[in-house]
Amino acid sequence: MRTDIVHIGAGELTYEIRNIVNVGNKLEKLGLTTNWENIGDPIAKGEKIPSWMKEIVADAVMQDLTYGYCPTRGVLSTREFIAAETNKRGGAQITPDDILFFNGLGDAISKIFGFLKRTARVLVPTPSYTTHSSAEAAHAGDKPLTYILDPNHHWYPDLDDLEKSIKYNPAVAGILIINPDNPTGAVYPTHILESIVELAKRYNLFIVCDEVYHNIVYNGTSTSPLSDVIGDVPAIAMRGISKEMPWPGSRCGWIEVYNGDKDPMFAKYIQSILNAKMVEVCSTTLPQVVFPKVVQHPKYQGYLQERIARYEKFSNIAHDCLKDVKGVLVNRPNGAFYMSVCFESGALTHDQTLVIDNKEVRAMVESLVSPEGTSLDKRFVYYLLGATGVCVVPLTSFATDLQGFRVTLLERDEAVFREVFETIAIAIHQYLES
Amino acid sequence: MRTDIVHIGAGELTYEIRNIVNVGNKLEKLGLTTNWENIGDPIAKGEKIPSWMKEIVADAVMQDLTYGYCPTRGVLSTREFIAAETNKRGGAQITPDDILFFNGLGDAISKIFGFLKRTARVLVPTPSYTTHSSAEAAHAGDKPLTYILDPNHHWYPDLDDLEKSIKYNPAVAGILIINPDNPTGAVYPTHILESIVELAKRYNLFIVCDEVYHNIVYNGTSTSPLSDVIGDVPAIAMRGISKEMPWPGSRCGWIEVYNGDKDPMFAKYIQSILNAKMVEVCSTTLPQVVFPKVVQHPKYQGYLQERIARYEKFSNIAHDCLKDVKGVLVNRPNGAFYMSVCFESGALTHDQTLVIDNKEVRAMVESLVSPEGTSLDKRFVYYLLGATGVCVVPLTSFATDLQGFRVTLLERDEAVFREVFETIAIAIHQYLES
Amino acid sequence: MRTDIVHIGAGELTYEIRNIVNVGNKLEKLGLTTNWENIGDPIAKGEKIPSWMKEIVADAVMQDLTYGYCPTRGVLSTREFIAAETNKRGGAQITPDDILFFNGLGDAISKIFGFLKRTARVLVPTPSYTTHSSAEAAHAGDKPLTYILDPNHHWYPDLDDLEKSIKYNPAVAGILIINPDNPTGAVYPTHILESIVELAKRYNLFIVCDEVYHNIVYNGTSTSPLSDVIGDVPAIAMRGISKEMPWPGSRCGWIEVYNGDKDPMFAKYIQSILNAKMVEVCSTTLPQVVFPKVVQHPKYQGYLQERIARYEKFSNIAHDCLKDVKGVLVNRPNGAFYMSVCFESGALTHDQTLVIDNKEVRAMVESLVSPEGTSLDKRFVYYLLGATGVCVVPLTSFATDLQGFRVTLLERDEAVFREVFETIAIAIHQYLES
Amino acid sequence: MRTDIVHIGAGELTYEIRNIVNVGNKLEKLGLTTNWENIGDPIAKGEKIPSWMKEIVADAVMQDLTYGYCPTRGVLSTREFIAAETNKRGGAQITPDDILFFNGLGDAISKIFGFLKRTARVLVPTPSYTTHSSAEAAHAGDKPLTYILDPNHHWYPDLDDLEKSIKYNPAVAGILIINPDNPTGAVYPTHILESIVELAKRYNLFIVCDEVYHNIVYNGTSTSPLSDVIGDVPAIAMRGISKEMPWPGSRCGWIEVYNGDKDPMFAKYIQSILNAKMVEVCSTTLPQVVFPKVVQHPKYQGYLQERIARYEKFSNIAHDCLKDVKGVLVNRPNGAFYMSVCFESGALTHDQTLVIDNKEVRAMVESLVSPEGTSLDKRFVYYLLGATGVCVVPLTSFATDLQGFRVTLLERDEAVFREVFETIAIAIHQYLES
Repeated sequence: MRTDIVHIGAGELTYEIRNIVNVGNKLEKLGLTTNWENIGDPIAKGEKIPSWMKEIVADAVMQDLTYGYCPTRGVLSTREFIAAETNKRGGAQITPDDILFFNGLGDAISKIFGFLKRTARVLVPTPSYTTHSSAEAAHAGDKPLTYILDPNHHWYPDLDDLEKSIKYNPAVAGILIINPDNPTGAVYPTHILESIVELAKRYNLFIVCDEVYHNIVYNGTSTSPLSDVIGDVPAIAMRGISKEMPWPGSRCGWIEVYNGDKDPMFAKYIQSILNAKMVEVCSTTLPQVVFPKVVQHPKYQGYLQERIARYEKFSNIAHDCLKDVKGVLVNRPNGAFYMSVCFESGALTHDQTLVIDNKEVRAMVESLVSPEGTSLDKRFVYYLLGATGVCVVPLTSFATDLQGFRVTLLERDEAVFREVFETIAIAIHQYLES
Repeated sequence: MRTDIVHIGAGELTYEIRNIVNVGNKLEKLGLTTNWENIGDPIAKGEKIPSWMKEIVADAVMQDLTYGYCPTRGVLSTREFIAAETNKRGGAQITPDDILFFNGLGDAISKIFGFLKRTARVLVPTPSYTTHSSAEAAHAGDKPLTYILDPNHHWYPDLDDLEKSIKYNPAVAGILIINPDNPTGAVYPTHILESIVELAKRYNLFIVCDEVYHNIVYNGTSTSPLSDVIGDVPAIAMRGISKEMPWPGSRCGWIEVYNGDKDPMFAKYIQSILNAKMVEVCSTTLPQVVFPKVVQHPKYQGYLQERIARYEKFSNIAHDCLKDVKGVLVNRPNGAFYMSVCFESGALTHDQTLVIDNKEVRAMVESLVSPEGTSLDKRFVYYLLGATGVCVVPLTSFATDLQGFRVTLLERDEAVFREVFETIAIAIHQYLES
Repeated sequence: MRTDIVHIGAGELTYEIRNIVNVGNKLEKLGLTTNWENIGDPIAKGEKIPSWMKEIVADAVMQDLTYGYCPTRGVLSTREFIAAETNKRGGAQITPDDILFFNGLGDAISKIFGFLKRTARVLVPTPSYTTHSSAEAAHAGDKPLTYILDPNHHWYPDLDDLEKSIKYNPAVAGILIINPDNPTGAVYPTHILESIVELAKRYNLFIVCDEVYHNIVYNGTSTSPLSDVIGDVPAIAMRGISKEMPWPGSRCGWIEVYNGDKDPMFAKYIQSILNAKMVEVCSTTLPQVVFPKVVQHPKYQGYLQERIARYEKFSNIAHDCLKDVKGVLVNRPNGAFYMSVCFESGALTHDQTLVIDNKEVRAMVESLVSPEGTSLDKRFVYYLLGATGVCVVPLTSFATDLQGFRVTLLERDEAVFREVFETIAIAIHQYLES
Repeated sequence: MRTDIVHIGAGELTYEIRNIVNVGNKLEKLGLTTNWENIGDPIAKGEKIPSWMKEIVADAVMQDLTYGYCPTRGVLSTREFIAAETNKRGGAQITPDDILFFNGLGDAISKIFGFLKRTARVLVPTPSYTTHSSAEAAHAGDKPLTYILDPNHHWYPDLDDLEKSIKYNPAVAGILIINPDNPTGAVYPTHILESIVELAKRYNLFIVCDEVYHNIVYNGTSTSPLSDVIGDVPAIAMRGISKEMPWPGSRCGWIEVYNGDKDPMFAKYIQSILNAKMVEVCSTTLPQVVFPKVVQHPKYQGYLQERIARYEKFSNIAHDCLKDVKGVLVNRPNGAFYMSVCFESGALTHDQTLVIDNKEVRAMVESLVSPEGTSLDKRFVYYLLGATGVCVVPLTSFATDLQGFRVTLLERDEAVFREVFETIAIAIHQYLES
């Protein structure tokens, strides 16, 4: 190339959740049997799509119109349905034109951060779901700017750290909230959301709130949708069908814009996101068409509750297995289907190992952790994978310096699930003692 | 907002093809009957999806796995199928890992330009399909850089203009080719493609080639896929299922990377595009699963040929209707399903009108064309719409200073099609004489 | 212009110290008699250059070589003299190659900030000498990033605010210290300098220290040159002859680089500043040639001490005049020749005035303060000028939200000086009571 | 450093004219006797400042006011004098406020390019005086954009290349002219200047014209100042006293702005340059004070004509010595005091040498030319220096791919001058034959 063509943010685009799959696949070829607890895809973990739901989709694809483009913002009747649902709650009121569909929240996130001015930053939590932190960092060509989720306090946001991160950095233009949270499984009490909104109002910021797991809350906890607490602060809420229906392969999510007309610069910004989508014509039509039919189906609520009950039960099994393990900090998830486990400071070293019988597997793991600069939790995760076949994701992949790992609650077989977590508990013990 | 959040390229994101729909919809409420010849969606124009095709899709959606995520690059078996098809042609040889699926070519285009370094530019044709020119311009925060398609020479690229645009502007890092072309319907002879590849090689550039209409060529013309002529120049070819199957609402397209390993900076750039997709997890699964089944179905070729034969026939009807109209320059389309008509220089004025009987419609059209700076062809297009209900797109929306309009060949009813073009012919005459 | 040519930082380049001169000049034409207490030029305020000093210069200009270029870094013998002086102190040790001459510190400041990467920021004090804050802000195309000088604590740096401004903003790469300070006249105790150096070390930053007033310290205070406390932290000290000799019209100052080889990126940065000067060939030769002769002349120390004694005496007169005035916060200057007076929060309103007898002058002042957004202290300063002829500079011109004004101690006539400050005291009282 | 602080344009700041001095100094320590023909400093080459001129300066420095700051734009009476001189010519008319003094043209150049928006470019000639090309390139963080000076056509600008460089690169906002030219000694006929102005007008660009050598034209040639031909095109002319008086060590030059009010964006740009200077307070006072006295002195014209006559004579000696040497292209200088000699394409190889008797000198030269990528003309220049002591500057240092060297006409001793050029002639012959 005669000129430099590599984007300033290229180095920030990393996604260990998927990178580790390549490693796991190679180890499988060497004879390893793997439990994939790394990726949040219920389907891949055996979740069955109910027949009534598949029939709704099959009916839809027999109609020619589901093959055509839809309006840029999305199918109008679906947006009308969603706006009515939001407005029913009594908080922020929206029209169908305040809704914009995307090809999954990844697409929404990519545009929301990608069409921010390069110098304007959005604070993301640490740890942070990588899609958010990578996209925000890539847009700026710099490391993500973060506020602390505190593992000693239920992984709730540290509001003092959040305020200072705003006050002392004028580049900060917005705050990202993920609630219920990925990767921690935390569910934020309403008063915390109110405090964050108050900070946004005081410092004249906008809020982005990822609510893709909003309907997956359990263990008796409760929270509020952003629309309930947002008042007159400009904001974007993100929703989707990937995790709930679940239809992750549909790449279908949407944003709801609150107070889009309260600030002229925010209005321009939202318009640029709409225009960016218009230039791509529209998002995928089929899932938008079927979504209202699915969630209004008489069997939908029962189906969803059965899954939530299972996550609740499994969150307690996981917590019970790990809570007394020495050297780690464990919080029980109360929402979504992830759990993040932290090693205590200083617990990990560069010498710890697990016994791996298969020579080739051992050699490969040793080679993978040998490069200087390999993070300590990545070292643990690779040994865990090589020794037990359990595949989790290093916590340092989630824009944090905390050492640990994220594991999903998606395994459907209770016995297998319990065994996986018991295996992890033993492995942690052995690794730290090694 | 306490800081400026509006992206440097926000002003470049325009897409008149869809903007005009809002105008048309408003006029319909005032009683106008509209012929939508503005948008390249065969479904919207009444194309029927054959039953056998819909059944393939319906079968697929009864399988749980089509609901899950797929690999970031796309479904492996589908990529294997595509790679084999490309390799069979005997030109550039690729592996499944040289293929990357996107949520439609709009998504691919957005990432290919969005993850270029801001200062590196890709020359786009003028006129240019807006998705390309807008995305390229937005990434740079500046107007698009263009090379001329010559309406006096079959809308072929002006190679002298192209070379000078490269030689005298060191910011140029790549060349975009659209072949068959949207919005002109031109099909480039192989020697023109070879000349462009030669320029890229000489100046050390990469090529992006949009081939979404590659299988829709007629009137006895022929061309080559990029893979046939690319040699060892780094390049990206774009393909999709929107226009051919047609399933535009699926948002499913892919890129094929040629010579991805021949230049280290190009390799890094391609990796950043892959990483950007990985951060969004993957593209939509269902259409990837069904694509090989559809195109290998025994009825597929016949179905496609029937459509192509229709476009050929209609291209000639359109050409016959307009070729002798004074004041315009007309080239018969030989591929895709668009035709671009140019007014002769000086033919349009700010005073020309068409008679619009409906008072409200007339008032609205007059109001729409009244702002200073309204382009002359936009004025014509709005009068045409108001007076006849025929909705086309001003040519100046396609990154060109040429005055004219783009019209589609998608209307399926021959009588209606002929009437639309006769109406346009008369309207041009009346408008220029007014 | 066919393209936008206005620099991103153009709006940050403001310098009220000189802007107000235009206003004063216009008012003088309307009959006003002015006392210029706005600009730090001892010559303009009547300071006499001693004959022996002028003779040194006159001898020099009779030698042809003083007319030629000098080496890019500056005249070697002068740099040797300066390096020896610095090294004698026993702190950081330098060679002549660690010294780089500029056309005044304004030139040095312009290059030091102008050749920082656009995204790297240097924290400046608030209030701040405008040349620093404007140049830093212009380089970034954004408002200056500041740390607080506390008017309730001798205008010393607020170290807690400084640390948070570093910790929570990763864009911060350096810290600017002005000691003795302009515009406050503060002289920092050594322990404060040590604390700032410690912060720079902890967070891996560099320090820039403007020491142009280093030899003008009085009222029994003492401080340290940066070289005494810098340890191994990369740093730049700034010195000059404008204020001390005084020869501001010579445009002659220099930087001393400490630990230029301790950090490879700092080394590259310093090299780029040297290269930027080399591209301009060199700085002005004559003052470099005469400088060592002047400061080593037997009469120099006595001459300087006489001036310092005067600043000391006048600092106390000024302080006595203003310290008991209600509504303002006053700190006695202990170095340089400036004093900054702060209005108490809420003391100023948009309705206060002073009586101005001359109608035309009154009309002009009223017109000058009428635009919406005129800062409250600018309003006071313009009324003070119109009513009394005393010209000072609004404190808000110095990158601060504090309302007040800066006044110089340069008037040589004690009676006039006392009258000026008594006039100011009365005017403050009348204005606040109006 | 915790963040990257190195400026995007740091790599563009190179100035071989001074770099080679370091090499020469080292070789002198090894016993080499050097003729410095590399730098355009008449004083260093023995030019005598006439007594009457030195006395004007000595008188000035006995007045206190020459030690003070002057107005930001410069000493008013001097600007009035200059404006009157310009206006007398009858072309563009200016006021004293259209003049802005700098600390030498290096300072002016640094601000003129440094306060352009990063994406706006000024075309510079190739070859180009390095201060211009480096400063322009550094501001953009990219290589300079150039138009050709044609060595086969008196080093005149290639107007066709210039127009294409404008037409095909929308980033171009201005054109730099150096007339009389450094490094070629060319003097442009008026019609060429008119053609360039016409291009600027047609494409809506501004012009920067370096006229520092305007009064040093000989060999019967003539040209026009920019003010004569500029019409209503926005422009900046650069003048100075370094070369003419000559007082390069004064760092004193100025710009004259023509049509500063004809384009609002140009007006803003000029204002930002003024503001940038205001932030540095002002430029050096003394040379501004003496300038009108010197150039109006009865002996000044005679003094200048004597020097010009010498440059004329020496330009012919130089030309005669080199014009018949095989393998080089030589144009006789007609202005300024530089000559650029080009090697014919292909004449230089990586193996050519000159005999160097001094072993240490030879070893050092061999080591200096050994790094891969050393340009062929740099190799020649280093061998010439090592073998003969004649120090010239490689032509490739002047933003050109042409191989050659620049040599000054400043040596005052005719016998020495002739010997230097005869030495060069022989060395070229021997080198090419070696």
